[in-house]
Amino acid sequence: MDAVFLGALDIGGSKIAATIANRSGPLARVTQATIKSGTPDAIARQCLQLLALACERAGIAPNEVSSLGVSSCGPFAVQDQALGLVAPNLCGGLTDSVDLPNDWTYIPLETILRTRYAQVAIENDCIAALTAERHFGAAQNQDNCVYVTWSTGIGFGLCVDGHILRGKHGNAGHAGHMLLSASEDALCGCGNRGDLEALVSGRNLGNQHGQSAADIFSAAHAGEARALAIVHEAARWFGRGLYNLATTLDTQCFLLGGSVWRHHADLLTPIIEAEMMSRFPALIAGITIRSAALDELVADIGALALVMPQEWMADWRLHSPWLNLQTHPVV
Amino acid sequence: MDAVFLGALDIGGSKIAATIANRSGPLARVTQATIKSGTPDAIARQCLQLLALACERAGIAPNEVSSLGVSSCGPFAVQDQALGLVAPNLCGGLTDSVDLPNDWTYIPLETILRTRYAQVAIENDCIAALTAERHFGAAQNQDNCVYVTWSTGIGFGLCVDGHILRGKHGNAGHAGHMLLSASEDALCGCGNRGDLEALVSGRNLGNQHGQSAADIFSAAHAGEARALAIVHEAARWFGRGLYNLATTLDTQCFLLGGSVWRHHADLLTPIIEAEMMSRFPALIAGITIRSAALDELVADIGALALVMPQEWMADWRLHSPWLNLQTHPVV
Repeated sequence: MDAVFLGALDIGGSKIAATIANRSGPLARVTQATIKSGTPDAIARQCLQLLALACERAGIAPNEVSSLGVSSCGPFAVQDQALGLVAPNLCGGLTDSVDLPNDWTYIPLETILRTRYAQVAIENDCIAALTAERHFGAAQNQDNCVYVTWSTGIGFGLCVDGHILRGKHGNAGHAGHMLLSASEDALCGCGNRGDLEALVSGRNLGNQHGQSAADIFSAAHAGEARALAIVHEAARWFGRGLYNLATTLDTQCFLLGGSVWRHHADLLTPIIEAEMMSRFPALIAGITIRSAALDELVADIGALALVMPQEWMADWRLHSPWLNLQTHPVV
Repeated sequence: MDAVFLGALDIGGSKIAATIANRSGPLARVTQATIKSGTPDAIARQCLQLLALACERAGIAPNEVSSLGVSSCGPFAVQDQALGLVAPNLCGGLTDSVDLPNDWTYIPLETILRTRYAQVAIENDCIAALTAERHFGAAQNQDNCVYVTWSTGIGFGLCVDGHILRGKHGNAGHAGHMLLSASEDALCGCGNRGDLEALVSGRNLGNQHGQSAADIFSAAHAGEARALAIVHEAARWFGRGLYNLATTLDTQCFLLGGSVWRHHADLLTPIIEAEMMSRFPALIAGITIRSAALDELVADIGALALVMPQEWMADWRLHSPWLNLQTHPVV
């Protein structure tokens, strides 16, 4: 049984992580800054190399890995019946709003990963995170729950009636691009003005106010009035976004993660709750907001859960074997 | 086989319809204005009486009806493990914003219907409509589709990955209450300001502009500039609402119904499409907008479909037996 090995990838805008696990837990994890130049297949090739390095660290050969779970930033698109990435934070050819050293319009992913791995499951990073939280974290036994990451961007994983929503190309949960403000001020990487991500993401808060989100939040914690006003406004928009999902999906529970949330939940929670809970009672009664449990490894664990045999899960739930995992950066 | 009889209710803010059907099709349908005074159980009692009248017209005894499907306006709430209505257009005790001759805060429904019928399935009217369109109408073989009614109110039925979304209390699809505008001008019956229903529903367009929605649309068709501007603005908000659902659910196809849409689709379609289709390509590519097929009986047929034996469906799909149905108003 321990001879079954799984691979996992977490593909993000700034780094990629490759992990190898067996039944006893994750064995090795390597990370590297995401390649953003070369041919459009550069990222998929980098993924294969990182998986090979992780195998080496785990003391196995790459062909011993039976299945590969992938958590990736999106959106996805389907070409020739295979999933690829059309992510504005990676593809320089898609929008003018992010400065990238490439002119990619589509990153092939599934096709290239399948040249090495027979079983490949690819999901959006927030869908992977929600999968992890449902199996091992704070969303166990929650059939109507939403995972939200508030970080440099904003992403969602949606579960309704016990079913995690994928949509026609696996892009369900891109509700960071929901339009909330008719004002033209805030610009998103997708080209929208006034969507949730434009209004509150760490990156866009920094762009709008000429000061990093970290600095804005530090100043707010120190009681600086302008910073407090910015944080208050962002939290109100965020609360309106969560309310929109709650009234659309009849959600029971929101699980929040991401760097902005993790570091500033105390400041944000009362404002978000006040904005949501002032609404028509039948649509918001009983909704809870809590922090996600699995923290920074949530997408990696979710990627593993996508391809994990059912019979491993109780053990993992009991022992949280990812807590001992060491990460090896690759230069 | 023809001895199996089904009952259906369509409970709306202005009228209730009760229908009896067997395998060959709907046999009788009676309607009456919705009761809005008396004790909170008045509506459920009225439903039982209308079903009895429909049975009489169908020539059967009420106890011959095996199963009851119910399509109702919402939202729903659960009390003592049974569904009831907390609808602001029926319950005078819930908000100040609608003038109603009662102080109801909860309408018991399931408990009372179950005193007569052993099998009762209750769904929101747009969930019922979507069920009908998926079985018999314009959403057959569409696994990622959204039904929208644009009428006196705005409602949605949502299907993702072939699964019709219900949510924790069956209230998924109340996206008419999604906040779109931060302006305080438009007031919804739920108490929200600036939600989709406040901005575009027939009732609220009338309230905002001091002229019925029908008159506004007539003037717009006649080329009157002010009316055209109102319609244009409403269609833009509506397009933003559809876009928000598309980016949240990765929808393939929107099916539109309701009186405003049915009569003015020609005027509305290009504006809605322009508002949606200007967005980030990966999130909107390939989305289609079309009219629902089943028209005014869609919720009644949906209510029947909730409890219909699988083996009837192919016949109904083939013969559209509801086309011959006569409706009998009860005074």
